[in-house]
Amino acid sequence: MLKVNEYFGGTVKSVALENAEGTATVGVMEAGEYDFGTATIELMTVTSGLLDVMLPGETNWKTYSKGETFRVEKDVRFKVKANGQVAYYCLYL
Amino acid sequence: MLKVNEYFGGTVKSVALENAEGTATVGVMEAGEYDFGTATIELMTVTSGLLDVMLPGETNWKTYSKGETFRVEKDVRFKVKANGQVAYYCLYL
Repeated sequence: MLKVNEYFGGTVKSVALENAEGTATVGVMEAGEYDFGTATIELMTVTSGLLDVMLPGETNWKTYSKGETFRVEKDVRFKVKANGQVAYYCLYL
Repeated sequence: MLKVNEYFGGTVKSVALENAEGTATVGVMEAGEYDFGTATIELMTVTSGLLDVMLPGETNWKTYSKGETFRVEKDVRFKVKANGQVAYYCLYL
């Protein structure tokens, strides 16, 4: 059965999948700023919308748009800021 | 509140979104063959996995992979076949 995950009081929702490409989720976040933690390396790709990202050790936001991917290391925290609803694909390495 | 949709007894689940790019869903389908209907023109992009598609009037399956998009007209039915779990982004025009 496909698993639906909810975070931050339902303002981020995702559906998990696993196939030949690996273990991943696709999801949507409402406009807002979020502080995420990682348990594995994550490759996060923006599917729709614009996502500002501040990775560990960085002090500036960098904007990622449709089709762009950023990598987040294992066991860190990072910040994202969505100005509108943003869809993403997150692959767990 | 983000809306989660379930189809075909939960073997297809999606999350709806709306932003500057339009109204869309991101979702996952379990391995299987599905017959979908459209209420608008749909632009469907494979986010992960391989999806065989048979559009109205066609008699052969065509395989779409990660990043590829197909267009489905309004008020038609079309078939898709997922060999494993497939993630997609569907934009409603």
